[in-house]
Amino acid sequence: MAAPFRRIGLFGRTGTPGVKDTLRSLIQYLTDFPRPVSLEQETALHLDETDLPVIAKEELAAYCDLLIVVGGDGSLLHAAHTAVEQQLPVLGINRGSLGFLTDIGPTALDRIGRILEGHYRTEERFLLTATVSQADAPSTTDDALNEVAMMPATFPHMLDFEIYINDEFVCSLHADGMIVATPTGSTAYALSGGGPILHPRLDAIVLVPMFPHSLSQRPIVVEGNAAVSIILSPDNRSASRLSCDGRPCLTLPPGCQIRILKKNQSLTLVHPTDYCYYKALRSKLQWGKKLIDGAREPC
Amino acid sequence: MAAPFRRIGLFGRTGTPGVKDTLRSLIQYLTDFPRPVSLEQETALHLDETDLPVIAKEELAAYCDLLIVVGGDGSLLHAAHTAVEQQLPVLGINRGSLGFLTDIGPTALDRIGRILEGHYRTEERFLLTATVSQADAPSTTDDALNEVAMMPATFPHMLDFEIYINDEFVCSLHADGMIVATPTGSTAYALSGGGPILHPRLDAIVLVPMFPHSLSQRPIVVEGNAAVSIILSPDNRSASRLSCDGRPCLTLPPGCQIRILKKNQSLTLVHPTDYCYYKALRSKLQWGKKLIDGAREPC
Amino acid sequence: MAAPFRRIGLFGRTGTPGVKDTLRSLIQYLTDFPRPVSLEQETALHLDETDLPVIAKEELAAYCDLLIVVGGDGSLLHAAHTAVEQQLPVLGINRGSLGFLTDIGPTALDRIGRILEGHYRTEERFLLTATVSQADAPSTTDDALNEVAMMPATFPHMLDFEIYINDEFVCSLHADGMIVATPTGSTAYALSGGGPILHPRLDAIVLVPMFPHSLSQRPIVVEGNAAVSIILSPDNRSASRLSCDGRPCLTLPPGCQIRILKKNQSLTLVHPTDYCYYKALRSKLQWGKKLIDGAREPC
Amino acid sequence: MAAPFRRIGLFGRTGTPGVKDTLRSLIQYLTDFPRPVSLEQETALHLDETDLPVIAKEELAAYCDLLIVVGGDGSLLHAAHTAVEQQLPVLGINRGSLGFLTDIGPTALDRIGRILEGHYRTEERFLLTATVSQADAPSTTDDALNEVAMMPATFPHMLDFEIYINDEFVCSLHADGMIVATPTGSTAYALSGGGPILHPRLDAIVLVPMFPHSLSQRPIVVEGNAAVSIILSPDNRSASRLSCDGRPCLTLPPGCQIRILKKNQSLTLVHPTDYCYYKALRSKLQWGKKLIDGAREPC
Repeated sequence: MAAPFRRIGLFGRTGTPGVKDTLRSLIQYLTDFPRPVSLEQETALHLDETDLPVIAKEELAAYCDLLIVVGGDGSLLHAAHTAVEQQLPVLGINRGSLGFLTDIGPTALDRIGRILEGHYRTEERFLLTATVSQADAPSTTDDALNEVAMMPATFPHMLDFEIYINDEFVCSLHADGMIVATPTGSTAYALSGGGPILHPRLDAIVLVPMFPHSLSQRPIVVEGNAAVSIILSPDNRSASRLSCDGRPCLTLPPGCQIRILKKNQSLTLVHPTDYCYYKALRSKLQWGKKLIDGAREPC
Repeated sequence: MAAPFRRIGLFGRTGTPGVKDTLRSLIQYLTDFPRPVSLEQETALHLDETDLPVIAKEELAAYCDLLIVVGGDGSLLHAAHTAVEQQLPVLGINRGSLGFLTDIGPTALDRIGRILEGHYRTEERFLLTATVSQADAPSTTDDALNEVAMMPATFPHMLDFEIYINDEFVCSLHADGMIVATPTGSTAYALSGGGPILHPRLDAIVLVPMFPHSLSQRPIVVEGNAAVSIILSPDNRSASRLSCDGRPCLTLPPGCQIRILKKNQSLTLVHPTDYCYYKALRSKLQWGKKLIDGAREPC
Repeated sequence: MAAPFRRIGLFGRTGTPGVKDTLRSLIQYLTDFPRPVSLEQETALHLDETDLPVIAKEELAAYCDLLIVVGGDGSLLHAAHTAVEQQLPVLGINRGSLGFLTDIGPTALDRIGRILEGHYRTEERFLLTATVSQADAPSTTDDALNEVAMMPATFPHMLDFEIYINDEFVCSLHADGMIVATPTGSTAYALSGGGPILHPRLDAIVLVPMFPHSLSQRPIVVEGNAAVSIILSPDNRSASRLSCDGRPCLTLPPGCQIRILKKNQSLTLVHPTDYCYYKALRSKLQWGKKLIDGAREPC
Repeated sequence: MAAPFRRIGLFGRTGTPGVKDTLRSLIQYLTDFPRPVSLEQETALHLDETDLPVIAKEELAAYCDLLIVVGGDGSLLHAAHTAVEQQLPVLGINRGSLGFLTDIGPTALDRIGRILEGHYRTEERFLLTATVSQADAPSTTDDALNEVAMMPATFPHMLDFEIYINDEFVCSLHADGMIVATPTGSTAYALSGGGPILHPRLDAIVLVPMFPHSLSQRPIVVEGNAAVSIILSPDNRSASRLSCDGRPCLTLPPGCQIRILKKNQSLTLVHPTDYCYYKALRSKLQWGKKLIDGAREPC
């Protein structure tokens, strides 16, 4: 049994339908536990019927040792950066359909009590840090739990760029862009682009070219510690953009360089003890059920 | 600098056009070096114009500390099992076009001297061991450097089977079969089936379903230490087959189980010091050349 | 309104679970209609509790002007050859889940009355005829409503072959095989192999290479009247097989030639007047429902 | 033998390296023929060393009965709209590598004489017309020889939209966008997105979803006369864009509708009598050469 959680922080995008209701049920449920509960500041904005203490995002770690996020995978992605910065473990409650990151349903709140008491397991998910360097300008940086994606700033424009891994030249590409994803992100945007599924425990990064001109391009999976560099050709006719986890990000001029590395701090996800990654996969991807009765028990 | 090689064994499928010529040139080239050279037994069969000592495959390690294989990737695959069993490092000389495993060309034999003297680096490539278990029959086993593939014994027949990873149920499949590949095999059969490229240093295995009935199936990459199990439905109308590295293998009755694990012993590949994996990729997959002059030097 | 159907033939693989029950319900339902009903001979075998007249497959057209097939797409495929030979229109009743070819559910038998009275529409689906020619042997031939597939007789063996369309050389291939599919077959085996969906009204054939060695191979769609020829290299190490609609078919020696042409006679499918192809697609492929309320009515 | 061409117009983007040189060689070559030659106005801008008559783009048809375009497929795409409007047949001279639309190389100018004398064949390629309708604004329209592509105006943003074919609801999509391509365009952008190759004689349109969220989406090929409608959800968070043949085009507000139809006028391509589509395919896609000596002559 793991250490119990003693102080709880709540996070949710209360502008999204359903989130407010689930948050209220959760607050009600938590009144049964002799543990202090705090509300993150933005979460509290639309939730005025409670008198829980409201804490600024940056100070959450001082007031809680578990962050419960209510919403879909998008909300957890949003909260992840705060959680990583402050080294707070995160438990995700999805609003409706099962998520890859939020594995407790809104009708299964009674499972949370067991978790608070120490019946849980944790899983580390690593992030990527992308740094953009260009001549005559300071470098800029952003983090991604799912993926770093480079795309043209305006469509339609193919980009010319080169890929390096650990400073070894891999190939040049004429393509719409490139996705560099973590195992966590391998079931998100990278999957739509034809990338493989990477098991979350795998220490690896996948590079997925977007609409490459060359038909023999394929996704490449490299070690998680690899340094991935993308050098944009100075001859590109237009600017491009870098987006981390789907957030809008800075405009990249032709000729600049992007360097993508594993971030030092990782995200700690909290799961019930019977959590099963493949169950989430089967549910989200509508994969087939068990064929063979009694062959073995599914998780 | 690494330890020099002192005794050399030669291996080649001399029935294949070109191999005999390259072997002869190699033997001629090696006469300049004060090192004993031996011929593997089958290799010697068609190469009667030399008086080098002939050694049985099983005893090569007693007579040499480096096995030079002349041929394509197929020949190296063939020799790999002997080399792994006897823990002999292998240097591959391709006959014509660059291979993934044989990276010295027939016109670059002069690079071998430097290697023999210790100017080389080694790379470990892991293998998979597949074990087939069935009721009322002893289990059988085979090894694969590239991939284990399960397919119907006769076409056309789709198979029903279940996949387990580390004894966790992953999914059931209605498909032509399944490929389980190492990083080494990720650029071979698995790539034709839509699998990703796995960098050889990656400790990972990729599962590629063959012609799955469900359109949402995708290749999955898991840790190299994962135990992959395939359980064939007892309701399959016909038998299926298991093939390691493209060799014909035993017939699998409906209901049997295949368990695939990383083999304890790995293959040691010997490369020139300037070896570059991505260069082989670019050449074999006809990927683009460098776009940007002077951005960085390619390897 | 179309001409009513006056004499009905029934077909079903009564060995398959569920088919017998649906057939019995259908026979019961049809007693309300003043129309003669006959049972196809094999269908009658397992259905001994009825005294309907039993007709040999080859003579169905003399006794009925509509063939009702109970089962899945596989059963309809099986009945199609009889129906085409005798120019009998076919109405498909699926046992459970919606099929691409069988679009009346087992709980919607009351829709059949309207169809018998003339409230229906017909759709022509063309077939392919494959002819195998080889030296010193008579040529052989078979038909396919879905697809002609060429594969190795035993695995694992890649095949070397050339493709010609209207006697123009298209390309040579090193692959596991080749699928040549009609629009009807484009949602079957060819789809698992990465082929596109062809609308059934499209007069076109799609060629889908199976696991091609060259990564730049793609499915090609050509006119329905195109003559597709496959010439197997005489250097293939082993025999291959040709399968029409998944039936086992003859063994092809190295060096033989396959010629695939549209068949003169087509299959006539009978649909309710509100039949919608895209609805079947959405259901079978689990595609999304309508997003936008009131934008337009779905069919 | 076809009718000889009597008056020649020249077109080329003389800002592109190499085009000017090939145009000069072509002008020199054509001095041997007793036929008037005119220069299109923009082409003439950078080509001041000749005294050929200069004609505005809109009046070319009054002065010539053949338009020779020097450049790559992009230049021919650019000239196509003028040629179609004025019903001028087009002969494409590529600058270097073979194109899909420009099939005479810069070192094969001597083939042009035979063509001018009537030794040629023509091929019709159809275009698509896209019309954008929105509330409270006049509708706008553009033509495409290759493809109509709908994409987000700024990245990263997935779009929600519905597809209708001939006013039948096909499916709703959550995706980066959608490509609707002609057979001519099937080897361009649509191919990078996973679409099939459509033979140019095929009367068909292919719909290729871009990075669809649902993994069971596949390209669909429909009849050339089909009306394809895309209705953008009014709930999309941001605007999208429509691009014909890669040209920037108008911004689409959420909720607007795009209707895509075959254009009445087609483009007439002029080919040498020995033109072979599959040869261009093999060359551009780096497909394999003939395997089997003497089986048949390639075109």
